[in-house]
Amino acid sequence: MSFSEITARVRYAETDQMGVVYHAHYYVYFEIGRVELMRTRGVAYKEMEERDDAYIVVAESHCRHLQPARYDDLLRIRTRVAEARRRTIRFAYEILNDSNGELLATGETLHVICNREGRPKALPDKYRELFPVSEHGGAEPER
Amino acid sequence: MSFSEITARVRYAETDQMGVVYHAHYYVYFEIGRVELMRTRGVAYKEMEERDDAYIVVAESHCRHLQPARYDDLLRIRTRVAEARRRTIRFAYEILNDSNGELLATGETLHVICNREGRPKALPDKYRELFPVSEHGGAEPER
Amino acid sequence: MSFSEITARVRYAETDQMGVVYHAHYYVYFEIGRVELMRTRGVAYKEMEERDDAYIVVAESHCRHLQPARYDDLLRIRTRVAEARRRTIRFAYEILNDSNGELLATGETLHVICNREGRPKALPDKYRELFPVSEHGGAEPER
Amino acid sequence: MSFSEITARVRYAETDQMGVVYHAHYYVYFEIGRVELMRTRGVAYKEMEERDDAYIVVAESHCRHLQPARYDDLLRIRTRVAEARRRTIRFAYEILNDSNGELLATGETLHVICNREGRPKALPDKYRELFPVSEHGGAEPER
Repeated sequence: MSFSEITARVRYAETDQMGVVYHAHYYVYFEIGRVELMRTRGVAYKEMEERDDAYIVVAESHCRHLQPARYDDLLRIRTRVAEARRRTIRFAYEILNDSNGELLATGETLHVICNREGRPKALPDKYRELFPVSEHGGAEPER
Repeated sequence: MSFSEITARVRYAETDQMGVVYHAHYYVYFEIGRVELMRTRGVAYKEMEERDDAYIVVAESHCRHLQPARYDDLLRIRTRVAEARRRTIRFAYEILNDSNGELLATGETLHVICNREGRPKALPDKYRELFPVSEHGGAEPER
Repeated sequence: MSFSEITARVRYAETDQMGVVYHAHYYVYFEIGRVELMRTRGVAYKEMEERDDAYIVVAESHCRHLQPARYDDLLRIRTRVAEARRRTIRFAYEILNDSNGELLATGETLHVICNREGRPKALPDKYRELFPVSEHGGAEPER
Repeated sequence: MSFSEITARVRYAETDQMGVVYHAHYYVYFEIGRVELMRTRGVAYKEMEERDDAYIVVAESHCRHLQPARYDDLLRIRTRVAEARRRTIRFAYEILNDSNGELLATGETLHVICNREGRPKALPDKYRELFPVSEHGGAEPER
């Protein structure tokens, strides 16, 4: 299964008074992973919005927080396409501590392709090959 | 089923260039709802941490984003305890547009009670009545 | 000098591992104060953008952090117009702990009125009375 | 004058509905630059806190926003020590668009060295060489 990877260092701004990364920031790490996966497949998400009027709007998001990430940790964000259909894409993520490989979090986000006004539309043809569409949908990803 | 409610106005800082609230912020709204539910039951979460060394660490978080929230919208955050066990609490949330009652998002967070060092512990007795423990756990909340 | 006031409760998400509010969030509190001042003068900033194509872009921001704000503190945000010119508005802020009146931070933001494309423009006439323009500018606010 | 540099890519989460980076995030970029400058001088800020009980608390922050940064821009963050005294350090920053060198923002932050309880203390000796102290303080940095 092909996935992309990128690292991100935990910022002080992302910690909370428990001394760990505030849980909502994992969704920002997911975003970083998602954009990187597109980039490695030749898609600048910025251009999807600007040139092709295709926004990948978040319809569902989920995260299991296994171990806390801490200030200054270098995180490895691993992203893959879990499922692609005509109008939706599901990404799956793993966040690891890059220094020791420990798995810190896993998660998924489901996206609906929309135009600028927020109306669902089909993914433009030119992106189809990049996100191979599974016609029959396949098994629902595990939770 | 008893729940608590609190309102929050969408800040400019919470919007993104799609012109809507960036999805990760819903988890902050959930936090506001969770703290408010505790407050209405007589618990200042701050004191749970400081006096009772009981932190409710996020182990899992989930959100369905149904309709976008927009800048300056007044949101109504509705929170209930979906499940309470000896060492875990599950909260369920609804985010509504306060002006028209439209449901914008639903979600859940699962928390593990931990001490300052992050080790799981039982919820201190004094909080048991506030979050009635379902011994047999009941059905898993729907997804 | 007329000012507006609004309160905001510190969110867990706004703390950092020092156990206090991360400094950048004061600028979000300033935004809350600024929007509230407009609202008390009959201006919904949202409509300034949508109907009048007038965006108040931040050109300069400054904050003195005097005392830390902490989780769950109720903050009182006091805002006034420090200076208004044809194309710029300067707001001044005080952040106080609402429970004891302690001054936590002071600051200023300078804004340039721009259209949707980010080009400077004069403040639309209808807003002139709300932000009285000082023709000669007056003294520069103290630093 | 010696400075350090590091790049950071603008995240979607950092944009607002004006289609540009929300101004408060520049202070997070400043933090990234500050930590990197320390790292290039052999100081892991994390260890300053953990081993030496020395926190560099933000006492003042300032930013001039010259040109907007946009989603997916690669930013170059340039940081230098503007002034170091026994108990305070002042950092100065420039944020540039890495692709064309355009200057987007400049700023400064003034920090007080504090212990874990937030009491001012002198910078531990071992860090003195890294942040050469100007005994007479020198000229106030320009605003």
